Amino acid sequence: MTMDLTFLGTGAAYPSPHRGASALVLRAEGDCWLFDCGEGTQTQLMKSQLRVGCISKIFISHLHGDHLFGLPGLLCTVSLNTNPDPQQALNCVDIYGPRGLRHFLRVTLGLTGSQLLFPYAVHELEPTSDQSPAEGQLSLEMTTDSGPLHPQERSGRTITLDVSTDSYLLFKDKVFVVKAFRLFHRIPSFGFCIQEHDRPGRLRTERLKELGLKPGPLYGCLKAGESVTLDSGLVVQPSDVLEDTIPGRKVCILGDCSSILGTKIFDVCHGADVLVHEATLANQHKDKAVDHGHSTPQMAAAVARVCSAKRLVLYHFSQRYKPSSQQKEGDKDDVTELKRQAEEGLQDCDVEVLLAEDFLSVPVPLRR
Amino acid sequence: MTMDLTFLGTGAAYPSPHRGASALVLRAEGDCWLFDCGEGTQTQLMKSQLRVGCISKIFISHLHGDHLFGLPGLLCTVSLNTNPDPQQALNCVDIYGPRGLRHFLRVTLGLTGSQLLFPYAVHELEPTSDQSPAEGQLSLEMTTDSGPLHPQERSGRTITLDVSTDSYLLFKDKVFVVKAFRLFHRIPSFGFCIQEHDRPGRLRTERLKELGLKPGPLYGCLKAGESVTLDSGLVVQPSDVLEDTIPGRKVCILGDCSSILGTKIFDVCHGADVLVHEATLANQHKDKAVDHGHSTPQMAAAVARVCSAKRLVLYHFSQRYKPSSQQKEGDKDDVTELKRQAEEGLQDCDVEVLLAEDFLSVPVPLRR
Ligand SMILES: [Zn+2]
Ligand SMILES: [Zn+2]
Ligand SMILES: [Zn+2]
Ligand SMILES: [Zn+2]
Repeated sequence: MTMDLTFLGTGAAYPSPHRGASALVLRAEGDCWLFDCGEGTQTQLMKSQLRVGCISKIFISHLHGDHLFGLPGLLCTVSLNTNPDPQQALNCVDIYGPRGLRHFLRVTLGLTGSQLLFPYAVHELEPTSDQSPAEGQLSLEMTTDSGPLHPQERSGRTITLDVSTDSYLLFKDKVFVVKAFRLFHRIPSFGFCIQEHDRPGRLRTERLKELGLKPGPLYGCLKAGESVTLDSGLVVQPSDVLEDTIPGRKVCILGDCSSILGTKIFDVCHGADVLVHEATLANQHKDKAVDHGHSTPQMAAAVARVCSAKRLVLYHFSQRYKPSSQQKEGDKDDVTELKRQAEEGLQDCDVEVLLAEDFLSVPVPLRR
Repeated sequence: MTMDLTFLGTGAAYPSPHRGASALVLRAEGDCWLFDCGEGTQTQLMKSQLRVGCISKIFISHLHGDHLFGLPGLLCTVSLNTNPDPQQALNCVDIYGPRGLRHFLRVTLGLTGSQLLFPYAVHELEPTSDQSPAEGQLSLEMTTDSGPLHPQERSGRTITLDVSTDSYLLFKDKVFVVKAFRLFHRIPSFGFCIQEHDRPGRLRTERLKELGLKPGPLYGCLKAGESVTLDSGLVVQPSDVLEDTIPGRKVCILGDCSSILGTKIFDVCHGADVLVHEATLANQHKDKAVDHGHSTPQMAAAVARVCSAKRLVLYHFSQRYKPSSQQKEGDKDDVTELKRQAEEGLQDCDVEVLLAEDFLSVPVPLRR
């Protein structure tokens, strides 16, 4: 199964003609999951290789406008790009994000009279009080969603922290398990860990032939991990006829943060194939970065190191850092310096560092 | 005083890479007023010749997302581009729009923890029940703003229809009087009439010299329309020493509509130097246009005719109509056909028709 990440916006604070506001798509076999949705994401999506109608799940790291203001418009435009199928109901779009997101969508879609062709549900993550300074926390009053649901809204879950793993279980299906974890920022922020399940190796057809086993239902049993007894009485174990297990891939995408909460989360994120981490300002501006709840390349590198990530992708750059292609002689701030600083922090370990730019696509190849 | 209009977005329904969502700036002597603010308006503003920080008043025609979803982000970015002046308080940004706008901003700015450097006030227009089908009307419950004000919010006015003129008086200052009027659309929509006051003509200095009047406070009196008695006993009338009165200009900007409510509004809009009217679909799609609460070029032309407008600017085109510069051979829909259709409806009168494109600037010269 092919898997890749496409960055739709890599700028901090607001969208600019050089860098869109935060948005990133994880594509796995045609299914597209959107992570954050700053203003202008729908237009960036139209400019990319992806189809606007492909988004099936949405994850919002935190409620700052540069990660959220594009969401109501995106939902409306996805709906316009949806073919109503009179034969079957359209799938529900699941949206995950901090408490308050449900009310935000209900009010923005409601007051604008926006009707969607598909149903949606908002599954809210309940932050803990140590995820931000006190002034960054929303009162229960502000996030109340006691009113009627939007006509296309389905009831969503409220998900609380599992203290035994320092994480939130968002969902688990046949292919993936997706968890969230807590980040410290000016307002509560979250990271997401997308873990693909290990899959059985391919059937060794040569060996099956030698054993006299013809294609049929028994092949499925072996692939599913069950042993099979032949007419001859011989018992065939799956391990006899399967190639090595295909290990699942892991992608970790962190929202804005100056630190991660909960030490057990490093086990959850351990060995990530791709770790996406913000690096808003260069190392020399660390005080300012941390003061605003943000990270430097060195801080991002430290997270990649402790997680033993294979690749670190930096994004969410201050708009002062132009994309390399638009860098002009004499520009004071150079985004490649951010890459150098992260690499400096990872000198003795085997982590590749990438700089995200709008429309950069990063493949997540199968592990070997 | 120079005056011009700059279109930041000219597309209907959603922003695209070819046409931004609705937004338009009226500039008068450096003061910038924004009319509608679809998603991506702040980025369009950055791409234009205008400064992001220049916006001092905002007018929202109706609450559809393609006219509104850019507003919270625009306010945040205007704030980032504002220099806090410790010597004096920043001016309040006045925002005018339909009932519900106050709640929309309070919730979007509130849940995202957005703090602005300047105060703002939302002055709500109370629609009448004949401005839309019943399903397009917001319940009082949905627009309630009983909660606490946003920290930077100042109390705004609630403005009701003046039935004697079929209009809403938004404000009157030394230079302008601005009124709104009712449009029929899927949800209540408004048009805006910006009327500059007539100004006294220039002082005829030759004539003043002949009369023996030296520069001084008496010049100001004459300019202000007061007669002056000289030492000789001679009474000088302003009309003796002033050139012709400089007539005020008039700009009318209509939001989405399939018709205008109130016949007296044609007097208010009479003689507009520029009339900005939507033309979402071509004449041959009139049924569909009206069904969706929209207009065709022919319908826009009829309004320009009855108002005796000097110039008609068409905008809010369906995204199927690419800008002329991006038109390709074989494209089925041609935006210049919309211009032709409006001109056809204005054959026997002297109205110039323009097609708006993103970043088009239309001067509003002094009347002669
Ligand atoms: Zn951010
Ligand atoms: Zn943030
Ligand atoms: Zn519209
Ligand atoms: Zn509309």
